[in-house]
Amino acid sequence: MSSARLIDGKAISTQIHSETLARTRALKEKYGVIPGITFVRVGDDPASKAYVRMKGAKADELGIRSDTIVLDEQTPQAELLALIDKLNRDPQVHGILVQAPLPRHIKEDEIFSGIDPNKDVDGFHPLNVGKLLLGQNPLFKPCTPAGVHELLIRTGVPLSGAEVVILGRGNIVGKPMAAILLQKEKHADATVTLLHSRSRNIAEHCRRADILIAAMGQAHFVKADMVKPGAVVIDVGVNRVDDPQAKNGYRLVGDVDFEAVRQVAGAITPNPGGVGPMTIAMLLANTARAAERGVS
Amino acid sequence: MSSARLIDGKAISTQIHSETLARTRALKEKYGVIPGITFVRVGDDPASKAYVRMKGAKADELGIRSDTIVLDEQTPQAELLALIDKLNRDPQVHGILVQAPLPRHIKEDEIFSGIDPNKDVDGFHPLNVGKLLLGQNPLFKPCTPAGVHELLIRTGVPLSGAEVVILGRGNIVGKPMAAILLQKEKHADATVTLLHSRSRNIAEHCRRADILIAAMGQAHFVKADMVKPGAVVIDVGVNRVDDPQAKNGYRLVGDVDFEAVRQVAGAITPNPGGVGPMTIAMLLANTARAAERGVS
Repeated sequence: MSSARLIDGKAISTQIHSETLARTRALKEKYGVIPGITFVRVGDDPASKAYVRMKGAKADELGIRSDTIVLDEQTPQAELLALIDKLNRDPQVHGILVQAPLPRHIKEDEIFSGIDPNKDVDGFHPLNVGKLLLGQNPLFKPCTPAGVHELLIRTGVPLSGAEVVILGRGNIVGKPMAAILLQKEKHADATVTLLHSRSRNIAEHCRRADILIAAMGQAHFVKADMVKPGAVVIDVGVNRVDDPQAKNGYRLVGDVDFEAVRQVAGAITPNPGGVGPMTIAMLLANTARAAERGVS
Repeated sequence: MSSARLIDGKAISTQIHSETLARTRALKEKYGVIPGITFVRVGDDPASKAYVRMKGAKADELGIRSDTIVLDEQTPQAELLALIDKLNRDPQVHGILVQAPLPRHIKEDEIFSGIDPNKDVDGFHPLNVGKLLLGQNPLFKPCTPAGVHELLIRTGVPLSGAEVVILGRGNIVGKPMAAILLQKEKHADATVTLLHSRSRNIAEHCRRADILIAAMGQAHFVKADMVKPGAVVIDVGVNRVDDPQAKNGYRLVGDVDFEAVRQVAGAITPNPGGVGPMTIAMLLANTARAAERGVS
């Protein structure tokens, strides 16, 4: 039985980290600049805590100064915006990341729009998203779709003219992923179809994909019979499923039924170890870029 | 032989114009405000002249004050940006439209980005395009795709779950059209595929479309055998073809082979008389909206 090549996100992210480290060293040596990122967390979501801790630790390794500001769950939106405004004006802060999800009384889009586009290392500011769609060289691309794009490029997956089917139209992955791959540019030029909860004939669409990107957040949604033999399958999903044997009572699984799909696909990301590490790699590469823009 | 229902852009645009007129009357009566749009033209392109004249005349009819500023072909970009800055600060000017195409020494994207997003009645500012893609209620939507959207809505074409295939990925039509139709919103929720010069299997993609939107600028590209029986076909193209019998030596034709395709389609826009009048209607509706935002 044939088995797909594994797309090793861990190895590729390590490569990007070492490139970022070289950049932060050059910034320090040539300009005395240490890139800085400030994480803002609101409330006590355990997953958010873990994410921010992980990103901060990796930043430190790469010569990026990181601070974490934690606000109370009840913090009014105006107070969060005032903090962002202060960070916008702080020349030591090159990148600002407000960790989602935010408490329900805070409007995420107003928060992301409040971040200076020049410090928007998450790539969520509408100005940067608009430039992304228009093909106008955004300051920063959203980290997860940019990470998937790097995976495809560095694995040598042909993109020009490729049939790409994206499952999920979220603002964090699906929509910007489509925007990246449909551009008239090198490493793009794909034919993109975006599927979502209202789409019909989902399996049929998936079966014509040369590259299938699953980002809709449903555990093991993509089955072997939805994949064209030889296709490249990218699993962005992170879903909790109950697991009485696990220490927390759950485990994390992707949107792709990995064991079955790997028998059909030509290449596939493991999950974990595929897209996840790329998101952090792109975030810290964006932070280096923010600091580089400040000295050039 | 069956024949498609005609989607009468002229009649629908007339309806929108009368709604706009009611809005400008209300603005005048309640607030003493007369909406104003300023057109900026650079150089002597005859088509641009005609477009601006036509838009200005229709504005006048609808109680919208219009000015046209004409700059010399050689005008440096900085001078154009300075003019835009002045218009940005002029409270009498609710909308600014810089007519494309611009001379080659001027970077269109820098010009469109220079317009105050609150006066961006063309909907081309990246901030508005970003909000459009993110589903965050942009101040203004680009006029041509917004016009196509209105045609579909007011003709009662079902959009939720519909297979939409868009030919052409331009910044003026294709990309924002996709962004509008893929949103998780009422009058949207379609499954969108964007095709372009590097796409393969174009005819096959077109044949599975419930709604086929041709906006790639190739005369009569869409033939009858590329259309699913009963599909809705929207022709955005405006192409010059030589015609020795015409007074100018050319005539304008769409991207769709109308006479053949109407025998297959369920509904179709004539061209001219389909999308064209809608673009102006949306521009002037946007201008009324800009003025309304100033008083609310």
